[in-house]
Amino acid sequence: MEARIRMPKLQERIMSADDAAGFIKDGMIVGISGFTRAGDAKAVPMALAERSKRLGTPMHIQLWTGASVAEEVDRVLAEAGIVTRRLPYQSDRLLRDAINRGEVMYTDQHLSLTVEMIRAGQLGRLDVAIIEAVAITEEGGIIPSTSVGNSPTFALMADKVIVELNTRQSALLEGMHDIYLPGARPHREPLPLQEVDQRIGTTFIPVDPDKIVGIVLTDRVDHFVDMVPGDEETDRIAEHLLDFFEYQVKTGQMPPELYPLQSGVGAVSNAVLSGLKHASFRDLTMYSEVLQDSVFELLDSGVLRFASGCAITVTPEHASDVMRRLHEYKDKIILRPQEISNHPELIRRLGIIAMNTALEADIYGNVNSTHVGGTHIMNGIGGSGDFARNALLSVFVTKSTAKGGRISSIVPMVSHVDHTEHDVDILVTEQGLADLRGLAPRERSRLVIEKCVHPDYRDAMIDYVERAEQRGGQTPHILEEALSWHERYRETGTMQVRRPQLAGQR
Amino acid sequence: MEARIRMPKLQERIMSADDAAGFIKDGMIVGISGFTRAGDAKAVPMALAERSKRLGTPMHIQLWTGASVAEEVDRVLAEAGIVTRRLPYQSDRLLRDAINRGEVMYTDQHLSLTVEMIRAGQLGRLDVAIIEAVAITEEGGIIPSTSVGNSPTFALMADKVIVELNTRQSALLEGMHDIYLPGARPHREPLPLQEVDQRIGTTFIPVDPDKIVGIVLTDRVDHFVDMVPGDEETDRIAEHLLDFFEYQVKTGQMPPELYPLQSGVGAVSNAVLSGLKHASFRDLTMYSEVLQDSVFELLDSGVLRFASGCAITVTPEHASDVMRRLHEYKDKIILRPQEISNHPELIRRLGIIAMNTALEADIYGNVNSTHVGGTHIMNGIGGSGDFARNALLSVFVTKSTAKGGRISSIVPMVSHVDHTEHDVDILVTEQGLADLRGLAPRERSRLVIEKCVHPDYRDAMIDYVERAEQRGGQTPHILEEALSWHERYRETGTMQVRRPQLAGQR
Ligand SMILES: CC(C)(COP(=O)(O)OP(=O)(O)OC[C@H]1O[C@@H](n2cnc3c(N)ncnc32)[C@H](O)[C@@H]1OP(=O)(O)O)[C@@H](O)C(=O)NCCC(=O)NCCS
Ligand SMILES: CC(C)(COP(=O)(O)OP(=O)(O)OC[C@H]1O[C@@H](n2cnc3c(N)ncnc32)[C@H](O)[C@@H]1OP(=O)(O)O)[C@@H](O)C(=O)NCCC(=O)NCCS
Repeated sequence: MEARIRMPKLQERIMSADDAAGFIKDGMIVGISGFTRAGDAKAVPMALAERSKRLGTPMHIQLWTGASVAEEVDRVLAEAGIVTRRLPYQSDRLLRDAINRGEVMYTDQHLSLTVEMIRAGQLGRLDVAIIEAVAITEEGGIIPSTSVGNSPTFALMADKVIVELNTRQSALLEGMHDIYLPGARPHREPLPLQEVDQRIGTTFIPVDPDKIVGIVLTDRVDHFVDMVPGDEETDRIAEHLLDFFEYQVKTGQMPPELYPLQSGVGAVSNAVLSGLKHASFRDLTMYSEVLQDSVFELLDSGVLRFASGCAITVTPEHASDVMRRLHEYKDKIILRPQEISNHPELIRRLGIIAMNTALEADIYGNVNSTHVGGTHIMNGIGGSGDFARNALLSVFVTKSTAKGGRISSIVPMVSHVDHTEHDVDILVTEQGLADLRGLAPRERSRLVIEKCVHPDYRDAMIDYVERAEQRGGQTPHILEEALSWHERYRETGTMQVRRPQLAGQR
Repeated sequence: MEARIRMPKLQERIMSADDAAGFIKDGMIVGISGFTRAGDAKAVPMALAERSKRLGTPMHIQLWTGASVAEEVDRVLAEAGIVTRRLPYQSDRLLRDAINRGEVMYTDQHLSLTVEMIRAGQLGRLDVAIIEAVAITEEGGIIPSTSVGNSPTFALMADKVIVELNTRQSALLEGMHDIYLPGARPHREPLPLQEVDQRIGTTFIPVDPDKIVGIVLTDRVDHFVDMVPGDEETDRIAEHLLDFFEYQVKTGQMPPELYPLQSGVGAVSNAVLSGLKHASFRDLTMYSEVLQDSVFELLDSGVLRFASGCAITVTPEHASDVMRRLHEYKDKIILRPQEISNHPELIRRLGIIAMNTALEADIYGNVNSTHVGGTHIMNGIGGSGDFARNALLSVFVTKSTAKGGRISSIVPMVSHVDHTEHDVDILVTEQGLADLRGLAPRERSRLVIEKCVHPDYRDAMIDYVERAEQRGGQTPHILEEALSWHERYRETGTMQVRRPQLAGQR
């Protein structure tokens, strides 16, 4: 234990998860480590749920995290009805349902912004921070585990800090983090980072050791979810995108090593990244958030030279292999606070190629990444806005249809906007790739229909656009029809028009 | 003339506007100086229209600018049918109509992004740049006039540069500019700017003198438009906002000098800024785009200590006074390229309070700043997205109704989204101020209805939200009704429901 808790006086603060949970009182704001289910504080939140059940006293807290956390945290706390507000990102099915029923207030935020708002006092005062660590240094600095997330600012701002020392997390993680906190505004210095593989901070989270009120020993592993495997359609999406990149390089529009890549969450993104295996690129770099399975495959094969991220989230089948070979990745990976991995300043400076997933996009290239049917949250905007707005090239991918073809993922008007046409340069479905850069909306719609819309929906879409254009406008629409595809799906279970005359008309 | 063209060999390149226009050939891309009708190249574009009429040869060009340019430029070129594509911003009534008819392809862009795209080769090759100047230095550097806009990058990237030397523009403008161009990506250095009043570049636009193919002498003044004066409603909006700021200071949430202010274009913004005259603030700073009338009044009274912008756009009644007293403003104003005035890196670093105007907002705080009825462009997104996304505090203002009360500017769902709820912290109408920070959509809607909606529309809005919430969701909507207010206006000329039962129901 001396190797893990290197500041002797802190060894006295080891306590049970239940005792540590005792620091959390009704009405408090609690911030926990965790990003895409990696490195999350698990033991104390679960103990909190049990404790509250056992004591039978009311317990309502606001829960702040990095991004999504382990099922057993979000799910258990949601089931216990303990969390009244949750921010800035989640992806748990049960919590999602509670949010959509209006039981949990979910403040969905750009992932780089949460800590700015906290430090500016805009979100309230953080009472307790719970941070998973692999070690505590001689000076009391916290070495995080598989994610950094918002933990550095949580540690800074919280009244009390609880450390979950996870002995199952590899000690080799120490040294892979780079913790940097920007100064106070308005007299902040430029962020010194200029290269993807540059270190600008410390390997530990600085914290006043006197604030560490408890250390809980735990050996719970990260609870990663299985990834939906790629399929023919995601392969085609990847192909279109790789062809495009190759063409950019061939015509001198991009350097052979491209630009630093960001790749979003989800099955489609992971499949697209995997597609790089089959391309001829070498020595690429990533400046991204979450490092998924495919990142490690690409590092192994030399396609990737370096990956900067905020969390390591690998599926169970890859996890043990990655963790066993962590020493091999030590000089190929840096984990940063999500504020830094997602910082507009850095994304703009580095010239990132951002690749994110849409639930649906419209003919003008507006993107909905979050709200099914315009109302029900799936996960959240996450870092997609940080990246799409500031990237050198912003790509969105989606399959052209969902739910067995009954939904067209390209619609006349998206039912919810997360990313406006200004932030969407390239739209890709398995049908093709639309390069929308520099185009006006009336040109964008033609190209999106030609390249991206599924053939089953193409005629109806052309019909819509032609009639809309007769009404005029920079962005032609027939407002009373614009959302009718969604209404039709809601009422009939499919967006397809069954009226035969439509096909006949054309 | 030696004082204005200080590089002797360039004096030989003086020519008529007509001859200079001869460099522009059919199919070319032309970039001209000009930002919010200030410092725009005027003589050559107008000569181009005349020349094309005289010669009777077809003439179609793409026109790139900083932002909006003088009426006589956009209007004359639009009337002559010369411009096929226009970017990144405009505000001319006649051009707007041509755009909405689909005759001109208008690529509406974030104002900080255009030059990044140009330098990355994403928009095509710039043939000719025409830049208004007050002087040319010994080394051939161009001293811009009342705006900087995109001129530095236009000068850098164009094959040929034409200078419009405007002898009516005050020579005192020399020294007020600060020209800085970021390096190439992905190995760009941090922008060194850390303070609003800091200089990081040169007072001139660097250009290879051999590229200057013509210098046209002109004495056309900037054609500023009259500002719609403030009224009781804009005064109330200003009051709400100033009360809010005062409360922030009183409770220690903001320093007495606030944070650097940005203020958008238009009558409402100007009125809000004017309202500061009556408040007790001193030594404020601005880091904004366009410096309108109110800025000079605030500098005169000491409310403002310093203003950084990209253009000086004052109304005719203020113009001569401001220009006459330019020496008094020399150490209180810096004019920067719009890329710098609007740079995400700097906006985030400096901690800007951004104040922009919405055409309409919805109950969840999504904002439409550009599209009337969801289809017809008004001006464009301009810099509002650069600021709103990256600000420390993003404020949007709008009157609660338009067109004599027949339009509610707060609607169930905006008909077009420019700014998502994530980028809107504070929404203000003459009815009140809604502080939306940290709230979930279901909380935002309650607050927006309580504080911002006009009483004539409040019951209908509450009715909508309550019924929408019964369908569930993070962001409840009744899709088939969400845009019905706009449809009703289109069909009946008012958004008001005439059915008496609605009022009775409640
Ligand atoms: C958009 C997002 C949900 C896609 O995730 P994914 O796993 O790649 O996508 P899938 O194609 O598997 O779709 C996920 C679900 O949405 C459904 N879906 C897809 N398109 C849909 C549409 N147009 N309408 C309704 N549902 C749709 C799928 O059917 C699937 O449903 P299921 O879970 O019931 O099977 C995910 O990328 C996300 O949350 N993005 C927002 C955050 C983000 O972009 N972060 C990036 C920076 S980290
Ligand atoms: C939104 C914007 C048009 C408002 O301008 P403004 O002069 O302050 O606003 P006004 O209240 O005078 O409204 C302008 C017009 O829109 C109309 N309008 C206002 N609200 C409306 C609504 N909800 N629906 C339809 N029309 C509306 C007004 O009636 C007026 O029409 P008119 O020109 O026929 O008289 C202007 O701020 C803009 O273009 N913003 C986008 C760019 C930007 O924000 N840049 C900021 C960084 S520079």
